[in-house]
Amino acid sequence: MTGGFDDLGYARPDTDREARMGLPEVVYGPGKTPQQMVGVVRSLLAGNEGPVLVTRLEPDAAAAVADAVPGSSYDPVARLLAWRPAAPRPFRVVVVSAGTSDGPVAAEAAAVATAIGLQVDELRDVGVAGVHRLLGETERMASADAVICVAGMEGALPSVVGGLVGCPVIAVPTSVGYGAVFEGITPLLAMLSSCAAGLVVVNIDSGFGAAIAAHRMALRAPR
Amino acid sequence: MTGGFDDLGYARPDTDREARMGLPEVVYGPGKTPQQMVGVVRSLLAGNEGPVLVTRLEPDAAAAVADAVPGSSYDPVARLLAWRPAAPRPFRVVVVSAGTSDGPVAAEAAAVATAIGLQVDELRDVGVAGVHRLLGETERMASADAVICVAGMEGALPSVVGGLVGCPVIAVPTSVGYGAVFEGITPLLAMLSSCAAGLVVVNIDSGFGAAIAAHRMALRAPR
Amino acid sequence: MTGGFDDLGYARPDTDREARMGLPEVVYGPGKTPQQMVGVVRSLLAGNEGPVLVTRLEPDAAAAVADAVPGSSYDPVARLLAWRPAAPRPFRVVVVSAGTSDGPVAAEAAAVATAIGLQVDELRDVGVAGVHRLLGETERMASADAVICVAGMEGALPSVVGGLVGCPVIAVPTSVGYGAVFEGITPLLAMLSSCAAGLVVVNIDSGFGAAIAAHRMALRAPR
Amino acid sequence: MTGGFDDLGYARPDTDREARMGLPEVVYGPGKTPQQMVGVVRSLLAGNEGPVLVTRLEPDAAAAVADAVPGSSYDPVARLLAWRPAAPRPFRVVVVSAGTSDGPVAAEAAAVATAIGLQVDELRDVGVAGVHRLLGETERMASADAVICVAGMEGALPSVVGGLVGCPVIAVPTSVGYGAVFEGITPLLAMLSSCAAGLVVVNIDSGFGAAIAAHRMALRAPR
Amino acid sequence: MTGGFDDLGYARPDTDREARMGLPEVVYGPGKTPQQMVGVVRSLLAGNEGPVLVTRLEPDAAAAVADAVPGSSYDPVARLLAWRPAAPRPFRVVVVSAGTSDGPVAAEAAAVATAIGLQVDELRDVGVAGVHRLLGETERMASADAVICVAGMEGALPSVVGGLVGCPVIAVPTSVGYGAVFEGITPLLAMLSSCAAGLVVVNIDSGFGAAIAAHRMALRAPR
Amino acid sequence: MTGGFDDLGYARPDTDREARMGLPEVVYGPGKTPQQMVGVVRSLLAGNEGPVLVTRLEPDAAAAVADAVPGSSYDPVARLLAWRPAAPRPFRVVVVSAGTSDGPVAAEAAAVATAIGLQVDELRDVGVAGVHRLLGETERMASADAVICVAGMEGALPSVVGGLVGCPVIAVPTSVGYGAVFEGITPLLAMLSSCAAGLVVVNIDSGFGAAIAAHRMALRAPR
Amino acid sequence: MTGGFDDLGYARPDTDREARMGLPEVVYGPGKTPQQMVGVVRSLLAGNEGPVLVTRLEPDAAAAVADAVPGSSYDPVARLLAWRPAAPRPFRVVVVSAGTSDGPVAAEAAAVATAIGLQVDELRDVGVAGVHRLLGETERMASADAVICVAGMEGALPSVVGGLVGCPVIAVPTSVGYGAVFEGITPLLAMLSSCAAGLVVVNIDSGFGAAIAAHRMALRAPR
Amino acid sequence: MTGGFDDLGYARPDTDREARMGLPEVVYGPGKTPQQMVGVVRSLLAGNEGPVLVTRLEPDAAAAVADAVPGSSYDPVARLLAWRPAAPRPFRVVVVSAGTSDGPVAAEAAAVATAIGLQVDELRDVGVAGVHRLLGETERMASADAVICVAGMEGALPSVVGGLVGCPVIAVPTSVGYGAVFEGITPLLAMLSSCAAGLVVVNIDSGFGAAIAAHRMALRAPR
Repeated sequence: MTGGFDDLGYARPDTDREARMGLPEVVYGPGKTPQQMVGVVRSLLAGNEGPVLVTRLEPDAAAAVADAVPGSSYDPVARLLAWRPAAPRPFRVVVVSAGTSDGPVAAEAAAVATAIGLQVDELRDVGVAGVHRLLGETERMASADAVICVAGMEGALPSVVGGLVGCPVIAVPTSVGYGAVFEGITPLLAMLSSCAAGLVVVNIDSGFGAAIAAHRMALRAPR
Repeated sequence: MTGGFDDLGYARPDTDREARMGLPEVVYGPGKTPQQMVGVVRSLLAGNEGPVLVTRLEPDAAAAVADAVPGSSYDPVARLLAWRPAAPRPFRVVVVSAGTSDGPVAAEAAAVATAIGLQVDELRDVGVAGVHRLLGETERMASADAVICVAGMEGALPSVVGGLVGCPVIAVPTSVGYGAVFEGITPLLAMLSSCAAGLVVVNIDSGFGAAIAAHRMALRAPR
Repeated sequence: MTGGFDDLGYARPDTDREARMGLPEVVYGPGKTPQQMVGVVRSLLAGNEGPVLVTRLEPDAAAAVADAVPGSSYDPVARLLAWRPAAPRPFRVVVVSAGTSDGPVAAEAAAVATAIGLQVDELRDVGVAGVHRLLGETERMASADAVICVAGMEGALPSVVGGLVGCPVIAVPTSVGYGAVFEGITPLLAMLSSCAAGLVVVNIDSGFGAAIAAHRMALRAPR
Repeated sequence: MTGGFDDLGYARPDTDREARMGLPEVVYGPGKTPQQMVGVVRSLLAGNEGPVLVTRLEPDAAAAVADAVPGSSYDPVARLLAWRPAAPRPFRVVVVSAGTSDGPVAAEAAAVATAIGLQVDELRDVGVAGVHRLLGETERMASADAVICVAGMEGALPSVVGGLVGCPVIAVPTSVGYGAVFEGITPLLAMLSSCAAGLVVVNIDSGFGAAIAAHRMALRAPR
Repeated sequence: MTGGFDDLGYARPDTDREARMGLPEVVYGPGKTPQQMVGVVRSLLAGNEGPVLVTRLEPDAAAAVADAVPGSSYDPVARLLAWRPAAPRPFRVVVVSAGTSDGPVAAEAAAVATAIGLQVDELRDVGVAGVHRLLGETERMASADAVICVAGMEGALPSVVGGLVGCPVIAVPTSVGYGAVFEGITPLLAMLSSCAAGLVVVNIDSGFGAAIAAHRMALRAPR
Repeated sequence: MTGGFDDLGYARPDTDREARMGLPEVVYGPGKTPQQMVGVVRSLLAGNEGPVLVTRLEPDAAAAVADAVPGSSYDPVARLLAWRPAAPRPFRVVVVSAGTSDGPVAAEAAAVATAIGLQVDELRDVGVAGVHRLLGETERMASADAVICVAGMEGALPSVVGGLVGCPVIAVPTSVGYGAVFEGITPLLAMLSSCAAGLVVVNIDSGFGAAIAAHRMALRAPR
Repeated sequence: MTGGFDDLGYARPDTDREARMGLPEVVYGPGKTPQQMVGVVRSLLAGNEGPVLVTRLEPDAAAAVADAVPGSSYDPVARLLAWRPAAPRPFRVVVVSAGTSDGPVAAEAAAVATAIGLQVDELRDVGVAGVHRLLGETERMASADAVICVAGMEGALPSVVGGLVGCPVIAVPTSVGYGAVFEGITPLLAMLSSCAAGLVVVNIDSGFGAAIAAHRMALRAPR
Repeated sequence: MTGGFDDLGYARPDTDREARMGLPEVVYGPGKTPQQMVGVVRSLLAGNEGPVLVTRLEPDAAAAVADAVPGSSYDPVARLLAWRPAAPRPFRVVVVSAGTSDGPVAAEAAAVATAIGLQVDELRDVGVAGVHRLLGETERMASADAVICVAGMEGALPSVVGGLVGCPVIAVPTSVGYGAVFEGITPLLAMLSSCAAGLVVVNIDSGFGAAIAAHRMALRAPR
């Protein structure tokens, strides 16, 4: 593990990342065999002190990895496998989602955020076609340290939320919808083009990316 | 003019259209010489009774055509040249626009609608980044026969309006914005993907198309 | 149910929508579990008086929901599950489709329109490659309150229909075709670019969107 | 000129092409200096017997080349500079265009076709929004050896024409229109996706390509 | 069958097409039930005298239709089901394909062309990476009435062939390849952009479209 | 100014925004006349206490507005016109840019951030083709409250920076480059796809958006 | 086998390629039947002396071909079936990959390179989010004859490597990632837009193409 | 200049690059002021021994920079400004271009290659529509150390060249053409999708990139 990484041949787990970023490397599951994931997870558990996570893992693969490395918990909606979740820190994130179908992406954001020690408050199905469902929750959102805003289809929700609150708004486009939604391209472009100033955007369906973005803000933001 | 059209060689003005659609053919200006426009306008004035319009005409070309065919009025913001505007009909259209920069497209919608006899009420700069500017106007929009909703950038306004009112909402994406707006592709796709049910969409920057769509509804809708 | 919605945690059915739009919220099926749909449908049936619909539901999921909430009917071609269909209203919609393969989208438009109380007349397989099949039906279309025009491939049918009739024409692009059709992008763009003035367009394959657009017009259009 | 070409250093005029294809190489003007064009034209005049053409030439460049190489004629609408036009051959092409704004592309098709000896019949402004203007010309088109069909916007005209006539239909999309026309992509895709069987398509705005395609058919088709 | 079509409710077989185009309507299989295809085929067999074809039919569906309507033959590579093939006519088509993987598209072109009475000569695997395999066949191609040129990947073959022969060249892009081929978009665009003058292009993978294009030329071209 | 906005007819300045977001509404210059900007700026100066900014203003337009509303300063590289800049707050932003050509976008980020009271440290021309220029600045970046990372071409810089530091990284793609850069689409997509976890992205060339995103974080982050 | 190829009817194996390129034709597996592959492989083995390869072959198809033509070896990760591997030549290629999930593409590059006689050194999981894992390997890469650099997601690795070493860098984008990665379009465009001068790029996921590019350089480069 | 670069504030010229890559950093002109270019050029001349180049410079800007830093030469077709050209090295590059209009891109490749010491042989206007112009030059290309192959439109030339020769082929797509060429996207995709194995591709219009790629090969290839 000299040089800040562990050389497994097929992988080089970055054991120095916890020092640089306050969080161990997170394992992206797709495209890796269970054996590869087991090796990487063991290396990360040994070389770091904080939470170790594998994302986007279907139940069968999760079971295979969990059997080989004890101590994990698995969330099947979020598809997250986690060891050593972090203790809660004083940084509150509201995860807002536009429709019930956006649930799995919101769940990934919430599960990752919880596993890395952020406090999570979830607000679901407040899409702009019935904007009164959202307006009554303004104070709940405005008092947060950050809002993660998840929406598919036209992706309008972050624009409205961003106009209501001053705290950071992390927009997550989802692939929910059909036709002109183009697997999430439309809400992605809409969020990037928002008239609400200072929105920031992560990749399509990336609840994970939004949670880590909130972690970066939390490093800076102990009110 | 037998056969429902006038054969000018370079053009065949459709003199039968007023009978079929309740409105003479409208001339699309770009790509036509002033001489061609003069010929077509004269033919339409002779072969119909209603308003004759040329759209998307810059001031110089408009002056050339107006000089040759008396009786017109020109709106430089809407770029519309019109003869024989129609008398007002009992159909009220609210033209709502998201930002001041969307003004020329909203102006085209309003000018065409007025010229063909619809009653127009304009509501400007009510974009969703300050949604309180819009919410106080709900009744004004809900009582209309149709709402034309003009927005660039993320194109979220029609989704919010469509959730507030039951009347027809005609969404017009504009090319206002930069970067990921892609000359209006983003609001176009967003409007087509809206979670507000029953929105209808016309081409990018087509205030003209929205006004004629309202005309079609007006043929059917004398409350 | 205070505040115009019912808070189920995973969803917030908009119980106020019937008052605003003359129609209860419609449930979009994909991405929701049967349990979630059952909960939302029960809430909507309790909180509204009009028809309650779930769209895009495959037979197995439809059976699960239908078993849990009595009183529904299911249309397997349209993939529509409906409770409490509305009584017929004096608004006639002609649903015109270009080819036999466009049938399921036309069926969704017709089934939704019927369920919400519009009168539906269907005209199938009148694509422009044999335009004589269409020309004989001009009066039937021109006398309607609205025409819903469904086409895939090059999407030319609404342009021809829009030139024949003066009533509102709602164009629905479908994903029928291959290669350069690009899953419906081509007819979508063609319909938006139509030389027939005043066409309006909804999302690819959205028979549902077209029917609700007609509903909005019907609110305004008791001839 | 051994080896079937003339080596000018900056260019290799293909002096063998007339033998292979029945027509000398045609010079594409853009991106070439007048000096380069003069050299290539002289080489082609010397090495072939048939017509020599330079396409897409603006008036200033055309004048410079014409001054240096006598005997040309220039068509400013078609932007075509030509020497030694061919004698008429018994192959009749009808060039049909949808709108007046499509004129320059139709003009290029007609001018090139005439210069290479085809008989040209032009039919303008018969777009599908007034389909009666087209239907009366069916026999005129059906009796041709080939129809060149030029349209922008939604590009529906070739579909209708292709359903009316059995002869070859060469579809030419144009960049006429705005917004969702995307500089001609939309009519291009529409023509490729046509439900009218056996249409063939050339590049956007390529009246030239359509005329040469007709030439290839004419080599095969002396009725 | 008055008015030139047969009204089956779900379909309107165009019984007049044989008179207009020299060939009965061809049935596009995808999206139709076997029952619908049986009905349409029976109508076309009754209302026309020439060959009746169903394209893009998988073996199971073909068997179901063939059992219900006797007298067909089925080509599983071309996925073509045909009744009453036409007698050979004096029009020779060379179907050239770039690679072995392009075989099914070339097979569709050849099978449809044969069924409608054209004479077919096939030349396979002559892609430009070994251009000597092609050059020896120049005369065989140049003496044809038309060349159908099938290629995926970079789609360069029609450009080379188009420079070698003067007869009509119908380019068919295929979806063969991966990555930057984008399901056939790349060869499609390449063929449309060819430096070989007068190529014409049909839809991606449309061996059918190419064969019918040749039929249109054959109507005009009895040498 | 009741209801939280000022109704100028052509615009509705949002005078309530300072209360909600800690910053007055910012005026987007393009598409507005000088007269419109003057009216909006006066309204914002009267209705708020904080800085008032107009973005993307060319020198001529800036001079016209500045003459009418005294007290402004103009930055011609950033194209920013500002009144009443805010006093510095204890939040340090490092603006890192990949190349000298990215300068104007970095300048906009720096100028807006300074005007709204953030402390700005600029680090230029540290693109990844000479990564040693960047590595020596790690501590300078890691000690910031946020890093704004500006890059065109392949947009790789934020990925490297995001791996070096734990603080928030706001990635700004620019339109610098040619060919496959596609006016900034390539760095935009690259930044959204980054393997460095927790990056957030704003619109192409939007130095403004990045600065306001930092402002949102600053509201939460007084260390 | 006269004329430099073997005519099998369905294929024309290019038996002259070994003379022109120093390597026999390589067989692309997808879209070919096992029978076709067997025939082509036999022809290539008979007509050449060097290695014969079939790429992108799944295990079942590989087994069928291997059974029919003895002497092969199969690499299931690289999906490569090979006969008569070449003896090692003095040309060393370092295959660098960004993440473990890029493994199969790197494996194809390594397996093809080895089979055609290049010396291969593999360096895995050195993505730019932990750039220290890469920096320690600079000399290992700089001393190579060529570097093949494999990366998905944002594709930044070749830019960093290209800035560290002077030898040829062949960039291979992969389809690894989700959302805005768009099946590899994003790393492809990023690599083409790199600020590191002189990078060259091959098709998405084409480990094969990169290995053959190195072969071309090896023909020229015996140090 | 410690740390391998020179810190000018607005730029950090990479003075270490000559040691790593055998060539000083090259300056990309667009987006830089003459003053910035002068500063960077002076720094590079002082900190390196080899040639210093500024690319893509229009005549006016070139004159301003050349006046301030003596000793340069300027090539207006290639738009290249160069100081201290390198002595010729034994590495021969053939620059092949498809059409006369591709000349400026070929000129940039040739001028940069010459300035950095490669031997250049130019072969112009050998596009595939007259493939005989190319076939006679096979040996001239096959004997080179590398071929740079420049083509717009359908970009087929590198596929044919790559099949004729075994040496490295660097394909350069150009933006020459119109319509479906899409500013060079089409030849770019075609070259990436080539059936000729082992082609490598650089950015659209990047003669510069191709020359530097050849330089990388030359470092490895003293035959």
